[in-house]
Amino acid sequence: MHHASDILFTLFIVFVAAQIGGEIAQRLKLPGVVGEIAAGCVIGPSLLGWITPEQIATGTPLDVLAEIGVVLLLFAVGLETRLEDLKKVGKVAFLVGVLGVLVPFGMGSVWAHGNGFEWDKSLFIAAAFVATSAGITARVLQELGALQRIESKVILGAAVIDDILAMLLLGVVVSMQGGGGFNLSHLLLVLAGAIGFIAVVGLGGARVMRWNSSWLEKPLGPHSPLMIVLALCLGLAYLSTLFGLAAIIGAFLAGMIASETRQQHTLEQQTMPLLALLTPFFFVVTGSKIDLRELASADALLMLAAVTAIAIVSKLIGGWLGSLSLGKRSATIIGFGMVPRGEVGVVIASLGFAAGVFNNRIYAIIVAMSLLTAMVTPPVLAWLLKRGSGSTVKVPDVKG
Amino acid sequence: MHHASDILFTLFIVFVAAQIGGEIAQRLKLPGVVGEIAAGCVIGPSLLGWITPEQIATGTPLDVLAEIGVVLLLFAVGLETRLEDLKKVGKVAFLVGVLGVLVPFGMGSVWAHGNGFEWDKSLFIAAAFVATSAGITARVLQELGALQRIESKVILGAAVIDDILAMLLLGVVVSMQGGGGFNLSHLLLVLAGAIGFIAVVGLGGARVMRWNSSWLEKPLGPHSPLMIVLALCLGLAYLSTLFGLAAIIGAFLAGMIASETRQQHTLEQQTMPLLALLTPFFFVVTGSKIDLRELASADALLMLAAVTAIAIVSKLIGGWLGSLSLGKRSATIIGFGMVPRGEVGVVIASLGFAAGVFNNRIYAIIVAMSLLTAMVTPPVLAWLLKRGSGSTVKVPDVKG
Repeated sequence: MHHASDILFTLFIVFVAAQIGGEIAQRLKLPGVVGEIAAGCVIGPSLLGWITPEQIATGTPLDVLAEIGVVLLLFAVGLETRLEDLKKVGKVAFLVGVLGVLVPFGMGSVWAHGNGFEWDKSLFIAAAFVATSAGITARVLQELGALQRIESKVILGAAVIDDILAMLLLGVVVSMQGGGGFNLSHLLLVLAGAIGFIAVVGLGGARVMRWNSSWLEKPLGPHSPLMIVLALCLGLAYLSTLFGLAAIIGAFLAGMIASETRQQHTLEQQTMPLLALLTPFFFVVTGSKIDLRELASADALLMLAAVTAIAIVSKLIGGWLGSLSLGKRSATIIGFGMVPRGEVGVVIASLGFAAGVFNNRIYAIIVAMSLLTAMVTPPVLAWLLKRGSGSTVKVPDVKG
Repeated sequence: MHHASDILFTLFIVFVAAQIGGEIAQRLKLPGVVGEIAAGCVIGPSLLGWITPEQIATGTPLDVLAEIGVVLLLFAVGLETRLEDLKKVGKVAFLVGVLGVLVPFGMGSVWAHGNGFEWDKSLFIAAAFVATSAGITARVLQELGALQRIESKVILGAAVIDDILAMLLLGVVVSMQGGGGFNLSHLLLVLAGAIGFIAVVGLGGARVMRWNSSWLEKPLGPHSPLMIVLALCLGLAYLSTLFGLAAIIGAFLAGMIASETRQQHTLEQQTMPLLALLTPFFFVVTGSKIDLRELASADALLMLAAVTAIAIVSKLIGGWLGSLSLGKRSATIIGFGMVPRGEVGVVIASLGFAAGVFNNRIYAIIVAMSLLTAMVTPPVLAWLLKRGSGSTVKVPDVKG
């Protein structure tokens, strides 16, 4: 009866560390998520070592809880996002997504080549500069009650496009390694599949739910709408990985579909405790992946500073240019909203490490950059959003 | 970005199977939990094989989710249990707990010895007859809205005592294997530790919360009472394993303490979605552990029938005798409420298997018996409870 002991202790430590970190951050007027990531860094392998690298490896219970946490987070964000609102910002979001991928990819590959990497390796490294992690930004927007602002809609729409492009780019650079060419028709097929999946699920699902959602209450269980919608969330999260997309894209779509039902308000309330329990695991695990020891030299820190600066500036430029039609203030918010790389950059770096493209140092630097962008963004974004709307954070209505 | 694929598929399958199983059971007027266990049996290794034995081994993500699920379930049950109510039934619960352990242990060891096992091995096998799994009964009582009935209080109180005694008994039989004697003073120390833990946490915690619970709202996070109480739940679940008790005892205590706060009602509502998402994992994983192939012979089935009959009858007698002072009807409900062995019997059988005391067949039979008692009880209990109170399930008030 003792087998559960160790894992319960770990769960307790992670959960409590997240609460303490979040509380300290909020007392310092920072978003709670910054404190949760920092808490992960503190209890992780590079400082206290209460979490070992083995405990956060792929497929471990902590990793799976983190995955469920971020899936539920994007589901909840989807629940507050109406398809109509996204459509209104479609053009701007598309521009932000495309430029937000091209500018970092270009600047990243030039930097890597300038630092002595071959072109094929440089492009792989640059791919780690590309993918925005919607999770961090979404959490900040949610904490500030700003999900209904037009900038939030653009950021979320652009994050979906960003994910499609990042996936394609990764496919290209992986196939280019070792001097082999890449298969254009295969890539176009993958692209068509991903776009088709999003279009069919998003448009079709929203239409079904708007037409009739009373069937959600047919089952006898007392919480049947929640249960069906959670099953939809897990199912679409899985399906989207089959189309090469991140699981969170499917979860976001599931939430967006569910936002069209007349049970939307109840679902929103019921999702809240799920986020409270599970998202801390995502942010603490994210933070615990920073290996401070690899960065303990002036050289490495300088390189990290350069990489992080390029990552922030390039994404900012891309997002800013893409959304300039909304005015400079909104464009700045959107540009910063696209900055966090979070776990996606970490995943690409892991792939590159496994493929022998990244050495130890560049791996640690890319991971640290991904997480630094994730930690720098929330306070900036919070400050911009609060300033942008005077004393209150929410803007009365979304303009088209 | 694909690593999450497999586990997301498994989570989806388990969750959906639980919903379908639960729905079918409810349409057949059975408690939903029966359907969830049956669903686990169907998708598990012995039938469809959608869940492999490796996926439900100790420490895997599914196992951990199941553990979190049952911990939250007992936490929620604790939330509906006031210390005062438990005190009122203290004497009866104590008798039920003690007799409910002694009678099955006696009958089990006689049966095992009669089937050719040495006395020391027979006592180990008999230990697997002992421990009631509060999870199954608690879920049925909760589904029927019967947690406020006096029988429910007795069952929950007795389950705590049962767990202490089962732990002691296991200590004794383990130390007896291989002909070695056992250390009485060590066992008494363990007993004192467990009782002390429960008394200090239960009485002390309840007093603190009743005295003042406004500090739960001090942190800045919007859901701070829930967060603190969830941390308490994980922490006490872990602590109780340190004292040799099941994790669910600590979780139950955490819920019971939280039931004394003035945020009790909100906490109850917020815990509901957590149960909805996570407890299905516990019941499906429990069901998937039944290996039907080991039982595919007339001999094995006959033995299983005998073992299950002894397990049910002995527990029924113990619980019935212990609670006869409440009247025959209540005593019957309480006796049946103590019948399910669930995961605790499985854990003891695993220990015996690892120690070489149990062979393949007796292991499969003990596991199957544990789960059969868990599947047989819910419909019987539901029927008894409905009959016992005429048209409505709830009894207006608890009598002392």
